Amino acid sequence: MTVQPMYIQFNTKGNTDIIDISKQVAGCIQESGIKDGIVTIFCPSSTSALTTIEYEPGCQSDLRRLFDELITSNRDYAHNETWGDGNGHSHLRAALLKPSLTVPFMDGRMTLGTWQQIIYVDFDTRPRRREVVVQVLGD
Amino acid sequence: MTVQPMYIQFNTKGNTDIIDISKQVAGCIQESGIKDGIVTIFCPSSTSALTTIEYEPGCQSDLRRLFDELITSNRDYAHNETWGDGNGHSHLRAALLKPSLTVPFMDGRMTLGTWQQIIYVDFDTRPRRREVVVQVLGD
Amino acid sequence: MTVQPMYIQFNTKGNTDIIDISKQVAGCIQESGIKDGIVTIFCPSSTSALTTIEYEPGCQSDLRRLFDELITSNRDYAHNETWGDGNGHSHLRAALLKPSLTVPFMDGRMTLGTWQQIIYVDFDTRPRRREVVVQVLGD
Repeated sequence: MTVQPMYIQFNTKGNTDIIDISKQVAGCIQESGIKDGIVTIFCPSSTSALTTIEYEPGCQSDLRRLFDELITSNRDYAHNETWGDGNGHSHLRAALLKPSLTVPFMDGRMTLGTWQQIIYVDFDTRPRRREVVVQVLGD
Repeated sequence: MTVQPMYIQFNTKGNTDIIDISKQVAGCIQESGIKDGIVTIFCPSSTSALTTIEYEPGCQSDLRRLFDELITSNRDYAHNETWGDGNGHSHLRAALLKPSLTVPFMDGRMTLGTWQQIIYVDFDTRPRRREVVVQVLGD
Repeated sequence: MTVQPMYIQFNTKGNTDIIDISKQVAGCIQESGIKDGIVTIFCPSSTSALTTIEYEPGCQSDLRRLFDELITSNRDYAHNETWGDGNGHSHLRAALLKPSLTVPFMDGRMTLGTWQQIIYVDFDTRPRRREVVVQVLGD
């Protein structure tokens, strides 16, 4: 069994920008040469998170509305008073959705459903260059 | 170290049906013959998710009410307008709760608490035959 | 590749007490002697959960308020009627935030962001002695 650490990089627009990273993760698995195992994807950031969704425009706008309503940006946050920045809500959204996702793969292919994509959600309030860690483990 | 991919299959009623799959996952670990490691359970679906809970009727009905309130089915979703189906809320609930769960095991036994069970939650709006991936990794 | 199971123990005050366990998890990785791999941290409990956050007092109080509002303690829960205890809301908060977190590490160091710490959140309603499982896997 071997471990193969890799990185994916991309640009985001911030403000709950939703990026489909399925192809890049699949590319990491192929590059590793590992056939069966798990891939752990991780955001080294406290204002972004990972999950899966059916990546079509309707679900994307529904997900943005969900976070805007559950954890609004239009109120006071203690974090903002501490630092003078305005991304207190971004930190809470990221903590709730969590920074890691682990997906099994067999014969070099992730076991995703037909309508299921891996998404990176950038909750920060400005465009950023982002990086996620892709750790491939298996045989 | 070895990897042992397996599947669990079961029927659900949909509409936030909550299924305790702890015994089937424990069975996969025993069948693998692996003694120490981690098991990754994964839903290859964008309308179901996994977590743990105390699997008693009270917690189950409380959890159903929670999702009915946080992400109601009684409103418009852009996903529904795109596809003409009515499960936009199912996609959001699944994305929030996430499709994977990783549990350590030692000496062939998962390190679950006494009152803690692994649950599959089917958020889709109709009964379905479902499958989850169980990837066992370890020594 | 080897597996190294370990435990971390600590005291909590309950009621969404938020504990930074990053240093203890880093200590487990060092003790294991494993250089590259993933660490799975797991709560063997149905009233606590794990995530990451920027561990500063503002984010901590914002996170406590978030859970107090999303899943209030001031209403009836079916769980409480079953058992006569008052922690129905604790179970729901823990189920939503989930009991496990997997973090990659390289060269013995977790790939956490600069402002990102691993937190244990105790949602139970009283002070407790708590334990989490730390399973280190890698080369």
